[in-house]
Amino acid sequence: MVEMRQPIAVKAAISLVMEHVEAMKDEKVSLADSYGRILAEDIVSEHAIPPFNRAPYDGFAIRAEDSIAASESNRITFNVVDHIGAGNVTTKVIKAGEAVRIMTGAAMPEGTDAVVMLEQARLSSLADTFTIRKPFLPLENVSLKGEDAKAGTALLKKGEQIHPGTIALLATLGYATVSVACKPRVGIIATGSELLDVAEELTAGKIRNSNGPMIEAQLARLRIPYCSYGKMNDDFKACLNIVKQACMETDCVITTGGVSVGDFDYLPAIYEKLGAKVLFNKVAMRPGSVTTVAILNGKLLFGLSGNPSACYTGFELFVRPALLRMMGSSKPYLRYTKAILQEDFAKPNPFTRFVRSIYQYAGEKATITPAGFNKSNAVTSIAFGNALMVLPGGTRGFSKGDSVDVLVLGTEDGDGEWII
Amino acid sequence: MVEMRQPIAVKAAISLVMEHVEAMKDEKVSLADSYGRILAEDIVSEHAIPPFNRAPYDGFAIRAEDSIAASESNRITFNVVDHIGAGNVTTKVIKAGEAVRIMTGAAMPEGTDAVVMLEQARLSSLADTFTIRKPFLPLENVSLKGEDAKAGTALLKKGEQIHPGTIALLATLGYATVSVACKPRVGIIATGSELLDVAEELTAGKIRNSNGPMIEAQLARLRIPYCSYGKMNDDFKACLNIVKQACMETDCVITTGGVSVGDFDYLPAIYEKLGAKVLFNKVAMRPGSVTTVAILNGKLLFGLSGNPSACYTGFELFVRPALLRMMGSSKPYLRYTKAILQEDFAKPNPFTRFVRSIYQYAGEKATITPAGFNKSNAVTSIAFGNALMVLPGGTRGFSKGDSVDVLVLGTEDGDGEWII
Repeated sequence: MVEMRQPIAVKAAISLVMEHVEAMKDEKVSLADSYGRILAEDIVSEHAIPPFNRAPYDGFAIRAEDSIAASESNRITFNVVDHIGAGNVTTKVIKAGEAVRIMTGAAMPEGTDAVVMLEQARLSSLADTFTIRKPFLPLENVSLKGEDAKAGTALLKKGEQIHPGTIALLATLGYATVSVACKPRVGIIATGSELLDVAEELTAGKIRNSNGPMIEAQLARLRIPYCSYGKMNDDFKACLNIVKQACMETDCVITTGGVSVGDFDYLPAIYEKLGAKVLFNKVAMRPGSVTTVAILNGKLLFGLSGNPSACYTGFELFVRPALLRMMGSSKPYLRYTKAILQEDFAKPNPFTRFVRSIYQYAGEKATITPAGFNKSNAVTSIAFGNALMVLPGGTRGFSKGDSVDVLVLGTEDGDGEWII
Repeated sequence: MVEMRQPIAVKAAISLVMEHVEAMKDEKVSLADSYGRILAEDIVSEHAIPPFNRAPYDGFAIRAEDSIAASESNRITFNVVDHIGAGNVTTKVIKAGEAVRIMTGAAMPEGTDAVVMLEQARLSSLADTFTIRKPFLPLENVSLKGEDAKAGTALLKKGEQIHPGTIALLATLGYATVSVACKPRVGIIATGSELLDVAEELTAGKIRNSNGPMIEAQLARLRIPYCSYGKMNDDFKACLNIVKQACMETDCVITTGGVSVGDFDYLPAIYEKLGAKVLFNKVAMRPGSVTTVAILNGKLLFGLSGNPSACYTGFELFVRPALLRMMGSSKPYLRYTKAILQEDFAKPNPFTRFVRSIYQYAGEKATITPAGFNKSNAVTSIAFGNALMVLPGGTRGFSKGDSVDVLVLGTEDGDGEWII
């Protein structure tokens, strides 16, 4: 008898995984090493940004009140009493009729409250005086202390991923080190007696292990470290031992293959032997319906399909958000968007389909086109695609021109919710 | 007199930079180290994928011709003569009325040309025979040799960026190593007497160096190595020497600050002293109009603004595509899309504006919202944004509800052309 499994909906499967995520600890890292990490602390500005009033242009700092009477017919003269660039401050206190030649970024001298831009001033030949032909308002051409952020402003939230702009802000605020979530270490085991190493020549009935290197790269994309346990033949004892070892040495274990109901699919028996609790072993999706997730001592064991397209999809839908959530990410899901389908998918499918596709902006609307051969064992379509088109299961097909759901692959930021 | 510079259009400036790019050499790297690299060779499949006919399901391999007469009332019996899993092949040649119990992924035994799925077969109690109730067509339930790609198919092109799907395909084809473009090494020099190190306490007129760490992260995002020469005061001789050193030690030099026409803006004089040819020193864009690019001995020198928002934008618009093109990337530009503006930008600007923004999918159309304080010296908006909204220069403003151009930041793949 073939074992009958009860499929659960993709959304329910993802929720189950996310409910079982255990958070990683925090650590302090240097700002230079923080790119891509998940913030483990809220960031509040300790001081105003900028921290002082400054000149946004090259010109002359004056007291606005001295300029009130200026006009085309009544040019007012200022004496230049000092000359400062950014980073320098004048020790002079500016009096009536005086000005400081000031460069972009320099702090406004005490007493001054407006900047005459160089092109607004007519300089004397010695450049020690200049005249203006219009009045300046108080704070005209001044970049104000705190205009970007006041002291005490909540700026970044725990759970945000650190990107280059975040780093600019952290640097501005003086964070030479920053608290981030520790990265999980992931174990990878490819199972299947058909698997050769990448460098091996093909022999009868064998194919090369593509899932192992692919998952390594999916983790490298997330900058998450891994330990590869290589490929295993379909041997219950040997697989059991390596899964057991990986569970001890890593924070999360991914296996590929061996999760279906075939005669040599040993993962279900291995989970049982280990005492792992299976969260689900069938998902209403294509490819990857055999995707199985179990939990053992708080560690997630992902049993992905051995078929490359299914394996890839299983990683992006289940493993990726789980790992990001382990690090406390507030946006662990693939970025969701919509696009116009470019081909008919006439045949309905009871399961939700995730079609490896090419997402493209063209004209007024984004388009989505299947990336080629569309079977769970396809490998070229993973190479050609940059997105997953999501076609909900049901009784109807889809037509060219339909607006369909799309999950974009390989973006730095994602979505906070699973939308589909 | 203030020096008057002639601004050039953004598109023209980008073209000028791209025309002056010199290609990096190639190198071989192991597949495990190839994620994110740019392919330096075309990839053609040496063999069919899959390399043999195989079973896509668990079941029994039969000769379709033996099943022709099968019906509900005339079940046909097969004798199971062997049992193979993926990776195993049978030595038996299958004769009339015989079948091989076969698991997903296993090669079709010689003589067989159809697979009876387990659920289509009624097994005897010993499982040594089974019956079927319907005929099978030749090649029914068979995954065909070459169905994913035939031998000799051009699969990947020089210039493509290697992502996890690419790696799955390369692994399948036996590429244990792959030719990729060498990475450029980039020098970073932050100039400005106002700059403190990140760990330093604020003092009068000073701010911390945020551009240096930000550019390091922008390069880390591209997985491009850099050498940081720290921050320099506005001192002609010292800056000249460090730029000279960086030019010798790296493939491309980025400076921040010192490119405007202020009294302590020494980069123009440094370019002149070094004999570098200035490609442009003013771009019709906000922020970052002072962005200057020069070339010396085939190396690009990027003089970015010292204002963080301008510096960030200058990197993404000019440095990023140049570095990717140095590596031969066929998609060096930021990913372009459109979205619905969520705020009025009533005031027209003669220059094209690049507004740090939040790009979001919401409902039927993507939206774009300015990420906060919108000045060239802003730092919070870079931290909050995930996209650049592009508002063309001219005489009109923009209104809430307008469809506007968007460049998405931090995506793995980009565009092959500069569209705007």
